Amino acid sequence: MAGNSFGRIYKLTSFGESHGRAIGGVIDGCPAGITLDVEAIQTELDRRRPGQSAIVTQRKEPDSVEVYSGIFEGKTTGTPIGFAIHNTDQKSKDYSHIKDSYRPSHADYVYDQKYGFRDYRGGGRSSARETASRVVAGAIAKQALSSMKITAFVSAVGELSLEKRYQDLDLSQIEKNIVRTADAEMAQQMEDYIKQIRKEGDTIGGVITCVIQNVPVGLGEPVFDKLHAELGKAMLSINAVKGFEYGSGFAGSRMKGSQHNDAFNSDGSTKTNYSGGVQGGISNGMDVYFNVAFKPVATIIQPYETIDKEGNTITTQGKGRHDPCVVPRAVPIVEAMAAMVMLDFTLLNRTIKK
Amino acid sequence: MAGNSFGRIYKLTSFGESHGRAIGGVIDGCPAGITLDVEAIQTELDRRRPGQSAIVTQRKEPDSVEVYSGIFEGKTTGTPIGFAIHNTDQKSKDYSHIKDSYRPSHADYVYDQKYGFRDYRGGGRSSARETASRVVAGAIAKQALSSMKITAFVSAVGELSLEKRYQDLDLSQIEKNIVRTADAEMAQQMEDYIKQIRKEGDTIGGVITCVIQNVPVGLGEPVFDKLHAELGKAMLSINAVKGFEYGSGFAGSRMKGSQHNDAFNSDGSTKTNYSGGVQGGISNGMDVYFNVAFKPVATIIQPYETIDKEGNTITTQGKGRHDPCVVPRAVPIVEAMAAMVMLDFTLLNRTIKK
Amino acid sequence: MAGNSFGRIYKLTSFGESHGRAIGGVIDGCPAGITLDVEAIQTELDRRRPGQSAIVTQRKEPDSVEVYSGIFEGKTTGTPIGFAIHNTDQKSKDYSHIKDSYRPSHADYVYDQKYGFRDYRGGGRSSARETASRVVAGAIAKQALSSMKITAFVSAVGELSLEKRYQDLDLSQIEKNIVRTADAEMAQQMEDYIKQIRKEGDTIGGVITCVIQNVPVGLGEPVFDKLHAELGKAMLSINAVKGFEYGSGFAGSRMKGSQHNDAFNSDGSTKTNYSGGVQGGISNGMDVYFNVAFKPVATIIQPYETIDKEGNTITTQGKGRHDPCVVPRAVPIVEAMAAMVMLDFTLLNRTIKK
Amino acid sequence: MAGNSFGRIYKLTSFGESHGRAIGGVIDGCPAGITLDVEAIQTELDRRRPGQSAIVTQRKEPDSVEVYSGIFEGKTTGTPIGFAIHNTDQKSKDYSHIKDSYRPSHADYVYDQKYGFRDYRGGGRSSARETASRVVAGAIAKQALSSMKITAFVSAVGELSLEKRYQDLDLSQIEKNIVRTADAEMAQQMEDYIKQIRKEGDTIGGVITCVIQNVPVGLGEPVFDKLHAELGKAMLSINAVKGFEYGSGFAGSRMKGSQHNDAFNSDGSTKTNYSGGVQGGISNGMDVYFNVAFKPVATIIQPYETIDKEGNTITTQGKGRHDPCVVPRAVPIVEAMAAMVMLDFTLLNRTIKK
Repeated sequence: MAGNSFGRIYKLTSFGESHGRAIGGVIDGCPAGITLDVEAIQTELDRRRPGQSAIVTQRKEPDSVEVYSGIFEGKTTGTPIGFAIHNTDQKSKDYSHIKDSYRPSHADYVYDQKYGFRDYRGGGRSSARETASRVVAGAIAKQALSSMKITAFVSAVGELSLEKRYQDLDLSQIEKNIVRTADAEMAQQMEDYIKQIRKEGDTIGGVITCVIQNVPVGLGEPVFDKLHAELGKAMLSINAVKGFEYGSGFAGSRMKGSQHNDAFNSDGSTKTNYSGGVQGGISNGMDVYFNVAFKPVATIIQPYETIDKEGNTITTQGKGRHDPCVVPRAVPIVEAMAAMVMLDFTLLNRTIKK
Repeated sequence: MAGNSFGRIYKLTSFGESHGRAIGGVIDGCPAGITLDVEAIQTELDRRRPGQSAIVTQRKEPDSVEVYSGIFEGKTTGTPIGFAIHNTDQKSKDYSHIKDSYRPSHADYVYDQKYGFRDYRGGGRSSARETASRVVAGAIAKQALSSMKITAFVSAVGELSLEKRYQDLDLSQIEKNIVRTADAEMAQQMEDYIKQIRKEGDTIGGVITCVIQNVPVGLGEPVFDKLHAELGKAMLSINAVKGFEYGSGFAGSRMKGSQHNDAFNSDGSTKTNYSGGVQGGISNGMDVYFNVAFKPVATIIQPYETIDKEGNTITTQGKGRHDPCVVPRAVPIVEAMAAMVMLDFTLLNRTIKK
Repeated sequence: MAGNSFGRIYKLTSFGESHGRAIGGVIDGCPAGITLDVEAIQTELDRRRPGQSAIVTQRKEPDSVEVYSGIFEGKTTGTPIGFAIHNTDQKSKDYSHIKDSYRPSHADYVYDQKYGFRDYRGGGRSSARETASRVVAGAIAKQALSSMKITAFVSAVGELSLEKRYQDLDLSQIEKNIVRTADAEMAQQMEDYIKQIRKEGDTIGGVITCVIQNVPVGLGEPVFDKLHAELGKAMLSINAVKGFEYGSGFAGSRMKGSQHNDAFNSDGSTKTNYSGGVQGGISNGMDVYFNVAFKPVATIIQPYETIDKEGNTITTQGKGRHDPCVVPRAVPIVEAMAAMVMLDFTLLNRTIKK
Repeated sequence: MAGNSFGRIYKLTSFGESHGRAIGGVIDGCPAGITLDVEAIQTELDRRRPGQSAIVTQRKEPDSVEVYSGIFEGKTTGTPIGFAIHNTDQKSKDYSHIKDSYRPSHADYVYDQKYGFRDYRGGGRSSARETASRVVAGAIAKQALSSMKITAFVSAVGELSLEKRYQDLDLSQIEKNIVRTADAEMAQQMEDYIKQIRKEGDTIGGVITCVIQNVPVGLGEPVFDKLHAELGKAMLSINAVKGFEYGSGFAGSRMKGSQHNDAFNSDGSTKTNYSGGVQGGISNGMDVYFNVAFKPVATIIQPYETIDKEGNTITTQGKGRHDPCVVPRAVPIVEAMAAMVMLDFTLLNRTIKK
């Protein structure tokens, strides 16, 4: 109930602080009999890993996952999958300056207020380091869901935005550039922009688009647990996310019904897909797609004023090794959360008919 | 697990089809000892009610709530509150034309695919009539939360959009116009526009903004059950919603950290509020505010092509009494869902310290 | 979270006080496409109904169920089944004497302490009247589970106990006698004994045995949600239950492993069944059987001393129309709870393999 | 949903197979600010540890717990407590003989049937080794609940049974004898008996009694989540448990209401306590006490017939180092589960009033 579990049938419960001994989790409800490629889990973690390119934080965290249970002779056994990622490169001294003060737009202040005190080292539990556990659970979900294809990419960095729809982009470009965008030329512009932002000691927000293909009809539950509502919660639970829209999204609010309705083909597919693959909360077999907005990282390497625990104004400066833009590393996290949601609904959907 | 419950401590489980005998629900976990104004529940239902003004559907549903349990001598007893709203004005014949065919961008097709068949009358369970149960649970939550103030209003109808921030609007205007917007002049324009849309037999989308004031610090759980993630899920679960953003939202993705960070005042409040009252998933005491995008209603009173159950193309025409624009009636639903989330987190927050 | 829901996939949320307007509930997660015999639900309610025979309470409660949703053209639709049983024969005046005092071994005192006040009429929410909602949900579960056979019967009334194992009893006798025991001769003795107890203004406890036949192998989840643990919780949640044992039960604690182990036949069935059809928390295909102990009803029609709200000792006397022995009417409740558990695990078991 | 979580607010999710890399778990919902004595956790584990005395299995498992998160500067932070116990003394070869056959009254057969295959080494997930994780979570719960006193002891080994009520026993004896019973003389008899049983290559069942003192009034939720129902489920989920009774238990089913009712003292306490400290599912401030029946361990060191995967009858012999009687080591497990239940209800009870 304290909010560290996600999912109903396929459920991740995660643990761990940024500078504690380890982060990790337990995946309960993974179906038995799935042949697991354990290296593929590590590959996903490497896509999220600090230090992977010139435009992300240069912290050195190998993020090597140890799986403790739930797999036998290469296959899932149906019992819980426990795993841990030991923390190795914590430079806790980097954070002594925040022990008694609150960084603006971080969770320092609210944790102290909510819990009475906090593990201030590296942001403790509020650190995005926690998302590594999501990537592990997502990587396993992807393998369980092998028929679906989940692809996320950076569609905007600040004002630099891909204007084309995903159907008109070359998604095979995504992993070929360090920004993880779907256009080679824009990739270079975004990379240059992020480097400039870093030089300024500043940070910049961005948008990730995600597309899920080969979705069967019928996933999602009516009323409260609509497919897109669960996807929305999943995405909004990722650090730094400020907004979620699917299908026509906010633009759809400016449209007329006569434009927005998706006419049927005779096989039940639709001619357009403003619905984003979801009608009445249930997948209709078309691509599910959505956008996720990320704010700029709060840690900037510039002097700024803030308050200490006693409410005194102090002048300080961001330190440490931080991301100037979070979206390149957030791509695998978006995919991981999407995979968990889709697997969960897939399993749940087995219970709804006689 | 079939998705008809919302909340963890304060939990609504709802039931009912549009043209069945009744809709209703059970609220479990409502704290004991709250003096309940039962008429205030009906007042909220009346804000959602069909037929309330010239710009909404002219169906006549009194939506009169009967409370069966959980209240004794004017106060909540801590036991479940069961309630029902009997259906009275169903003109089921209006829907015989959709029995064997699928309306575009409705849930007809996916229900048939998911469950094998469907109660087609009035959309059955997928009808927005279901939201009346949410309004009941929200009205009770509002009374339990009397210190917080939850205010939603229409901020856009199609391209007609309030450009001011909520702080610069006169929120006392909202219930004075039938659009439920916070600007008298814009209210007239929006009303005229909706009437014109109706005349065309068409529909139009819109946006609702919601502001929650007097929020204590500390609500929301870290990681998966962040305050804004739960609010997002709550809003996305409302029929016709396509997007959710809080605080700076999608615009925040285009900002730099140096602009976006909310500097502290010495009392822990912040000078700006791009964070939308939430940091690290936990309320920081500032106003919580967010936008919810609604698509245009799918039922249009125009001829259109669609398919029948066998996949044959047919030409048909929307019938019945429908809303040309859903946002005026959705305002109390947004407030209701927000109230349920805030009460749930308020109760949950009592368990987190020694 | 306030404890009024039971089940995970097939879930009943119940509501209602003994003398409120109605009791009832919502069943979420009932699979779509089950042909429902609505009269069979009423038949089960009639087995639980007051006034059905000379040895039960003579209150006149028709307990007529109204189903509000979730059924269309005779079949379940997969959407929630809302239902209510209106209260009709409440003689609330009968209870004015307990408004300000606490009956021994009732829940009066603890409700006041826990919630600050209570709906004292007829025991309010703590009344066994609540179990009628369970019978409705159980009756539907039985129909969904048509291949399994769930049979409960009275195996003891006070010291009068059936000494034979269920395999050696004639279970077809159960519904032929008003005690609902599986032996015609013992039925008469038990009936006579209960009548004598009633004449004394006293009450007597008893035991119900339940047998579930045709159980497939594999139901139940390992570790916390073992099949028998969930059955145990289900039974212990019924009013007046003091104990639960399955298979060899408490007698098994006095046995040696060499006696107790159930040797296999070549088809995986076992030669004996001390395990009670469950090994490691999972059904093994043999009959599941268990005993449920009920205490004597607390309301006796004799003078007794107790305390009022201020702690003053008062002398009072039980009034109203009460059961001298609860087990004859509890038989359908035991079956209902068993059916809910078995259906829930049946549905859950669909999710555990690739 | 796969059954590896226990609790609602204070929730343990456990993982691990007997001969896998590690067992462990995540505790979510532990309140912040509790000063934790980490050595006390290890002390509880040592009470459960194999090899601790002459009458338990001689396997050498140090069962040393590593805590990964959730504790900072000696106090709980309110974030999840992740922990692992690495497996060190697995002699997996001991189990090669069971790879392709099924031990009677073990979970081998049902796991294969349910999941399609199993990790057969040492019983895999069905091993009682899993209960070490419960002891960790229980040890922390005990510290959080410092005002309550939870005491379990062996009250029977086979036919050797303490005849006195717990109030008439010297509970300070419990940890002074290796059987963990509350009578020095009986301790010697039980010890001798267990040694003789071991010599025979056989095993014997037993009973554990647990008493919870200083319980506040008001814990437990009405209807399905009654205090004793949750305790019952907790106990029945422990390996080898066959029965649970609280207060008067099965004996109560043979009593009359006039004997069984607990008359009030003027302070709300009761003169007798047949209720076992629970009325209507809610604690009444009296001692909560209950009995838990354990079957004899299934592994006997004698030749026996069983079947292999193909259904062929084979003759084999139990090997490995097993407990002749499980109850001495199960005492801390019973206490751990009781502590988890009591803490969970304590936290939940904070949400029920205005």
